Amino acid sequence: MARALSDRAALPADSVVARRLIRSGAHTGHTSGMAPEFVQGNLCILPAEYAADFAAYCQRNPKPCPLIGMGAAGDPRLPSLGEDLDIRTDVPRYRVFRDGAPVDEPTDIMAYWREDLVSFVLGCSFSFEQPLIEHGIRLRHVERGENVAMYKTNIDTVAAGPFSGKMVVSMRPMYPSEAIRAIQVTSRFPSVHGAPIHIGLPEQIGITDVEKPFAGDPPRMQDDEIPVFWGCGVTPQVAVEQARPPLCITHKPGGMIVTDLRNRDLAAF
Amino acid sequence: MARALSDRAALPADSVVARRLIRSGAHTGHTSGMAPEFVQGNLCILPAEYAADFAAYCQRNPKPCPLIGMGAAGDPRLPSLGEDLDIRTDVPRYRVFRDGAPVDEPTDIMAYWREDLVSFVLGCSFSFEQPLIEHGIRLRHVERGENVAMYKTNIDTVAAGPFSGKMVVSMRPMYPSEAIRAIQVTSRFPSVHGAPIHIGLPEQIGITDVEKPFAGDPPRMQDDEIPVFWGCGVTPQVAVEQARPPLCITHKPGGMIVTDLRNRDLAAF
Repeated sequence: MARALSDRAALPADSVVARRLIRSGAHTGHTSGMAPEFVQGNLCILPAEYAADFAAYCQRNPKPCPLIGMGAAGDPRLPSLGEDLDIRTDVPRYRVFRDGAPVDEPTDIMAYWREDLVSFVLGCSFSFEQPLIEHGIRLRHVERGENVAMYKTNIDTVAAGPFSGKMVVSMRPMYPSEAIRAIQVTSRFPSVHGAPIHIGLPEQIGITDVEKPFAGDPPRMQDDEIPVFWGCGVTPQVAVEQARPPLCITHKPGGMIVTDLRNRDLAAF
Repeated sequence: MARALSDRAALPADSVVARRLIRSGAHTGHTSGMAPEFVQGNLCILPAEYAADFAAYCQRNPKPCPLIGMGAAGDPRLPSLGEDLDIRTDVPRYRVFRDGAPVDEPTDIMAYWREDLVSFVLGCSFSFEQPLIEHGIRLRHVERGENVAMYKTNIDTVAAGPFSGKMVVSMRPMYPSEAIRAIQVTSRFPSVHGAPIHIGLPEQIGITDVEKPFAGDPPRMQDDEIPVFWGCGVTPQVAVEQARPPLCITHKPGGMIVTDLRNRDLAAF
């Protein structure tokens, strides 16, 4: 089964099928290309005492932290994102943090679940990359099978309680005409990072060398390209690491929670 | 009266009042700031034998040549742009070309009007500059009271009959965040040049020195700004000059035809 999954053609197109496959333990890797018409999300699970502050942090920083789902304390379901969705089993691999430090990477979190845990699902750039590709925009990292380049900026997020920190951005190099089209396309999707937060002059946002990303692969910019920066879902992870809650559970980057929302339904117009 | 007009506060806010003032001969200068909520247009009047080709040229090059009004042969009225509008009298100052060469700059064209003349009105960037300013974007040339910088690019327009030539663009220097917002705002206005055609790398479109514009004032770019380029209504004038029709009448740049359309009504969404 795992071998079949390395062939993109064998990836399930349906979100419910994708979730069942992940729940069964048969798929523990990244979710790029799975159910591509459906929204995938970043996961962050926190104790209830941190929930209001984290919700406020997301609300105040909608570009890097677009909240698309929030559960009730102790309830592993998120029916607005998928009727059968169980947040304890439906992510390929989790990361468990205690006091801000990673301690485990299980494929389910049944053993960690508690009655005071609140789940947050944040929009992810997978949802706008698909429309970009459909609009004829070439994404270099996708073509190369690499991870998008990510950077810590000098832009302060708006703090909420213990949550604060610099904004993390993802960058996609584009020809100027692609950059204009990409701004139009992503502006339609405010719940998955929306329009870029910066374009063209990396040093203005504290990035001195685009070829040395904080995470992801070097973009290998060409002279005829300009850098286009979007708010990145890694931003809340940085904020959570700095807040050092006694327990925090996230997805392992790249392997997202697959929802039943369709990317097209997130279009604002 | 002329002295009063130098005070922007004294400029008429209403399009009908503005047109009457121009028609009376009391205002022969530029129309920037007159009836700012209303659409102003570029004018091009040609003999009927050139009309179909010029209409096709506009249709094929909608970014530099967005056609917002077209009259019938010999009819000086354009009721869709203003019920009382008379294209022979309602422009502050005209330019008359014979065989492509300028021969006169009258304040009306009653003496030139013929039964075979067809009027074309093209959208103008005034209509998107107002929304840009309303969205908090500072336009350097407006603040300085200068003309926007214009350049001949290496981009070929799509030819139609005798009309062809390179695209002319206007450029506004902006901070990166302003540039992103400006792409969003102008994308809503496809009938007045719409989204930019280029951003960031002037040499890619044949502009070797942005401080040496083909027309308008040098933009005096700052290091923290990027250049944003829009299709420009001067493009059809260049095409007409090259086509050398026996007679062509345009507005004198800066003094446009003021219509009763509201800028907001041109928004596509």
